[in-house]
Amino acid sequence: MYGGIEAGGTKFICAVAASPTDQPEATLTLPTTTPDETLGRCIAFFEPFRAHLKAIGVASFGPIDLHRQSPTYGFITTTPKPGWHYADVVGPLRKTFGVPVGFDTDVNGAALGELRYGGGQGAESVVYFTIGTGIGGGAVIDGRLIHGLVHPEMGHLAVRRHPADTFEGQCPYHQDCLEGMACGPAIKARWGRPADELPSDHPAWEFEAYYLAQAAASVLLTLSPEKVIFGGGVMHQPQLFPLLRKKTIEILNGYVQHPAILERIESLIIPPGLGDRAGITGALELAHVASIASI
Amino acid sequence: MYGGIEAGGTKFICAVAASPTDQPEATLTLPTTTPDETLGRCIAFFEPFRAHLKAIGVASFGPIDLHRQSPTYGFITTTPKPGWHYADVVGPLRKTFGVPVGFDTDVNGAALGELRYGGGQGAESVVYFTIGTGIGGGAVIDGRLIHGLVHPEMGHLAVRRHPADTFEGQCPYHQDCLEGMACGPAIKARWGRPADELPSDHPAWEFEAYYLAQAAASVLLTLSPEKVIFGGGVMHQPQLFPLLRKKTIEILNGYVQHPAILERIESLIIPPGLGDRAGITGALELAHVASIASI
Repeated sequence: MYGGIEAGGTKFICAVAASPTDQPEATLTLPTTTPDETLGRCIAFFEPFRAHLKAIGVASFGPIDLHRQSPTYGFITTTPKPGWHYADVVGPLRKTFGVPVGFDTDVNGAALGELRYGGGQGAESVVYFTIGTGIGGGAVIDGRLIHGLVHPEMGHLAVRRHPADTFEGQCPYHQDCLEGMACGPAIKARWGRPADELPSDHPAWEFEAYYLAQAAASVLLTLSPEKVIFGGGVMHQPQLFPLLRKKTIEILNGYVQHPAILERIESLIIPPGLGDRAGITGALELAHVASIASI
Repeated sequence: MYGGIEAGGTKFICAVAASPTDQPEATLTLPTTTPDETLGRCIAFFEPFRAHLKAIGVASFGPIDLHRQSPTYGFITTTPKPGWHYADVVGPLRKTFGVPVGFDTDVNGAALGELRYGGGQGAESVVYFTIGTGIGGGAVIDGRLIHGLVHPEMGHLAVRRHPADTFEGQCPYHQDCLEGMACGPAIKARWGRPADELPSDHPAWEFEAYYLAQAAASVLLTLSPEKVIFGGGVMHQPQLFPLLRKKTIEILNGYVQHPAILERIESLIIPPGLGDRAGITGALELAHVASIASI
């Protein structure tokens, strides 16, 4: 059995399953409180499966430390979230269960899950964006997760302001970056109502598609992925995808001449094939990968 | 011996060397005319070394086809350059010499050369920008060159306009993208004089650093490389690097809290360690890699 934790800033989702795509034996959703309490409840959830647990995978909110040689490897690091500044996530799990613990960002986990089991099957390169309370982006390139100096933080890419948009943006670091302009709370702050209460012909979607298309174009120009997947709560709006695809084509304006962009963009910019299970499937896949790497 | 070709839109540079870092036995610089004539002159240059040639590497202007299964693998594809639309580069070399031919973009080649032998030694992830007649960017991530759907085209990233800049931009596809605002010809068009004739305290450099810093910030947020290297003719301005580093820090504004950014940015954003030899060294390294892959 594999254990998975999708560790979000608002809630944690835990699952135990025979494989990343099997129906889980058990799941638990819990609110994110203190690290001790939250990780304690995760540990209690996995405890009955101890004898069968091969590995645990954690797909976590960030920023996180992914450098295996670092003394704070497996920690959530400089988050402003109270109590979680330099919180050790991997350590308690590894100490309690003595199994390999895979660890990556929530969006890298989802990108990996989508590549192996979702909308990215058959591709070697996938970028996964989540558009929700915040915005994050992860990537698998040539089958491998991108780390590097830190890890991708695509939610904070600069965007150009829509000419008709007077909302000032709400990112505490960059004000009008992608997240500052296009995350769920930004939509709510701009229009006075949450995204899921806005009608499908509301001008909000024109703005939203404009910002998300800039993100899609930027990753197509830097990472050149075969799939750009947009998940998260804000994307539960079927009218958003056609707008987003149209604007991505407009922004690229014929420069990247590939049929996947010019003729088949509905197969390039897609919702997650795993739907809202992309995150937990990715966490279980991180466990799967960790169990193989430890053999 | 390895053969290398740095294939640019204006000139080709050929070299033959015992290793990518050895002093070449011979070099040739020739203007880019027709594919037949230009590749013919390259072939004539390598001919005397035929018996000793283990492999040839080509670091080429683009866009190019890097998909080995494609019928146009090894071609320059949709370039507007007269005569070069779907020109086969790898085919004639392989046919003539019967050796493995490595092929990648000029900037991917330079990124690889810098990672192995230049300013990126010790790093696993490097982004290389060239700022010259055009702007291009290549990347090695976890030791591997990025390809994907096509290959990176970072020169066409969207940038925010400097508030005091009235230049409209000159990219035929995007008008005011990075290349449209910050390549050598854009500087000349904006100020009426080529970059290398502008004094070091000219306001041009403030604008230039502002655009290049956006490129640096964007790749740090998407690819998270350990080194961001800026080469090419426009970067032969020592005053540009401190400005570029300062503005990159301003744009990121403390969001990515890593000492490499906050404390040691002069080691993160750097000129090429190989100087203007980054491109040809990269081409020779592509030959070296191709010779190993073929064993």
